[in-house]
Amino acid sequence: MSGVLEVCRRGREASYALAAASRAVKDAALRAMAKALRDNTDAIVQANALDVAAASEGGTPESTVDRLRLDPTRVDAMAVGLEDLAGLADPVGEVVRGYTLPNGLELRQVRVPFGVVGIIYEARPNVTADAAGICLKSGNAVLLRGSSSAAHSNAAIVDVLRSAAESSGLPADVVQGVPGDRAAVKELMQARGLVDVLIPRGGAGLIQTVVSESTVPVIETGVGNCHVYVDADADLDLAVKILLNAKTQRPSVCNAAESVLVHADVAEAFLAKALPALADAGVTVHGDQRVVAASNQVVPATEQDFGTEYLSLDLSAAVVDSLEAAVEHIRRYGSSHTEAIVTRSQAAARRFVQAVDAAAVVVNASTRFTDGGEFGFGAEIGISTQKLHARGPMGLPEMTSTKYVVTGEGQVRT
Amino acid sequence: MSGVLEVCRRGREASYALAAASRAVKDAALRAMAKALRDNTDAIVQANALDVAAASEGGTPESTVDRLRLDPTRVDAMAVGLEDLAGLADPVGEVVRGYTLPNGLELRQVRVPFGVVGIIYEARPNVTADAAGICLKSGNAVLLRGSSSAAHSNAAIVDVLRSAAESSGLPADVVQGVPGDRAAVKELMQARGLVDVLIPRGGAGLIQTVVSESTVPVIETGVGNCHVYVDADADLDLAVKILLNAKTQRPSVCNAAESVLVHADVAEAFLAKALPALADAGVTVHGDQRVVAASNQVVPATEQDFGTEYLSLDLSAAVVDSLEAAVEHIRRYGSSHTEAIVTRSQAAARRFVQAVDAAAVVVNASTRFTDGGEFGFGAEIGISTQKLHARGPMGLPEMTSTKYVVTGEGQVRT
Repeated sequence: MSGVLEVCRRGREASYALAAASRAVKDAALRAMAKALRDNTDAIVQANALDVAAASEGGTPESTVDRLRLDPTRVDAMAVGLEDLAGLADPVGEVVRGYTLPNGLELRQVRVPFGVVGIIYEARPNVTADAAGICLKSGNAVLLRGSSSAAHSNAAIVDVLRSAAESSGLPADVVQGVPGDRAAVKELMQARGLVDVLIPRGGAGLIQTVVSESTVPVIETGVGNCHVYVDADADLDLAVKILLNAKTQRPSVCNAAESVLVHADVAEAFLAKALPALADAGVTVHGDQRVVAASNQVVPATEQDFGTEYLSLDLSAAVVDSLEAAVEHIRRYGSSHTEAIVTRSQAAARRFVQAVDAAAVVVNASTRFTDGGEFGFGAEIGISTQKLHARGPMGLPEMTSTKYVVTGEGQVRT
Repeated sequence: MSGVLEVCRRGREASYALAAASRAVKDAALRAMAKALRDNTDAIVQANALDVAAASEGGTPESTVDRLRLDPTRVDAMAVGLEDLAGLADPVGEVVRGYTLPNGLELRQVRVPFGVVGIIYEARPNVTADAAGICLKSGNAVLLRGSSSAAHSNAAIVDVLRSAAESSGLPADVVQGVPGDRAAVKELMQARGLVDVLIPRGGAGLIQTVVSESTVPVIETGVGNCHVYVDADADLDLAVKILLNAKTQRPSVCNAAESVLVHADVAEAFLAKALPALADAGVTVHGDQRVVAASNQVVPATEQDFGTEYLSLDLSAAVVDSLEAAVEHIRRYGSSHTEAIVTRSQAAARRFVQAVDAAAVVVNASTRFTDGGEFGFGAEIGISTQKLHARGPMGLPEMTSTKYVVTGEGQVRT
């Protein structure tokens, strides 16, 4: 058995004990992990310094190096995240539905852990602690495969978490790193039966690789080409406020707006208000012909612009002749993440909500609210942009499967 | 664009109208489809005769030919199935959860159709009508890929259903067959983005192919290596009754029992009752050493027997030294479909239910109850043996995704 399959097998074995653990045991382990992170801050920061030095010497852009960097404040934030998880309800054991069948059988559908969850990520090292915590709380053994650029940091964090789990009476193997090269990742993606679910977190390239090469079921997270549609019946000042927030409040995240569509009836009035405000905020607008005609500050948009998740202070913009044309545009270019309409019309809102197929459809508010924290979930492992299993922000319940429990007194089928 | 991708694209287009259709329109279409099947019974039976003749001439076993055969009674049963669907609640629009956030945003998680569902099947032609009906009721355009041996039958049924859908005001393309050879199926499996979900229905080979070759998300259905565990505290007469029913009531289906495990403390007494009863019912028992020692009618089991879904009047049998040993055995050989315990002990039932990871865990009843009809779902597209999205019998709600609808009055993120 290869190293990776052996890691998977140990995860499976550990998952049995974890699935049987009470909430009290899991919460104690989360608190022990938080304390251990704080107690080992120096060791973690030292390990991280190796990754940071290698990245800097390798010419990595400073913004990326900064995301990689850990300091005592960031280590403490990881610890706080684990403590917060300890305060959340346990999804395991929740009865999703239950009733008694005509023959007297008692049927209950109950939440159970998946078993073994693999996380493949290229984000900051704090994902290591966050993902481990969410998996532990939801009763899942986790296999963590971070980026090689954070290998020292991740290994140090995993070591600390494993010791803390063990000291709390759980198997250390409820948290494991996945060592090895790209071939190891390939093995992980093909370990159907040993790994129950894979969740990739990172750029579009990583997610595409995991989706196309995995036989293990994947929950796709990620790309958000989010639109704000300004309807003919919109309050235009409200529309400007919402668009500015959606575009500029944090441009680098998936729920930031990347495109604005405006109904032709109000295009002139809206653009007269919006374009100067966008310019003041440092936003470059890539517009279609009708938007370009409204201002000499607008860059002509290419077809590619409308399909682009900029993640920067850029915005594509188009004038549409109807709500239906806006829906068509979103169906063509959108990524089914978050789509917003600004309107005073109940009929327009209703039609937009029905016709636009996305994880979240927003009426008269910023796209930036599509977030586990904002939705009140308390924790988030990512935002699913697929339709199977979980769609939108994934909290603890989304990290579980279910089991039917059927209790009788000798019933047989006739 | 290839023929298959064009079919997918037309399905996507049709799915928009279907997703917007009211329950009344969908139910009218289902009733029109039922009537059209009855009105076209002769044409369907004639098309079916071509498939039956080809199968018989090709030397297909008579039991398989019989499953392929349609007569007016079987056509009527398909129509009744569609009418039954019209009587079920519409899963689309159901609010799964909803509350108001601290900032006043109203959050609702609402069931929506997947969009386009592909069904790849090798079963009887009645699956064509059943799957089309379930998909239509749940608002999904369906792409039907049946086996080539039923090609004439399936084409005739699809034609009838399409005309009826159109006459009810829905696009004909809400129901489509997928033409072409194996390369076409491969294209269907790779049509991620155009097809939302694939559900294979058929033998283990088909399911394995779809799972390993698809980039479209798959819901795996199928294999059931189901166990009955007779605990030390079991009522042995009840155990015999449950085992006989689970094994013999319909041996060819996935929720039939394939293996019995008995606690060593009661093995002698249980086997003395069970083995003659099984023999009377025509069951061949493949036992481990300790079971073989109990009767000269028991065939020695190989390692392979314990992992086999017989789907016949064969049963593997083993004596285990504890409940934990039974759990270990099921973890090793089971397929996570349905596992049953017979016991009077509350502690044993509780531990078995917790420790056995399966779609359904049954206490003191037959494994045969794992079924959408028995569970009161009214319709079933299959029994999922995977953990993602749906697990166990899949009814109409399992054929939907969800969408978050967020309604505000100008909220932005700070």
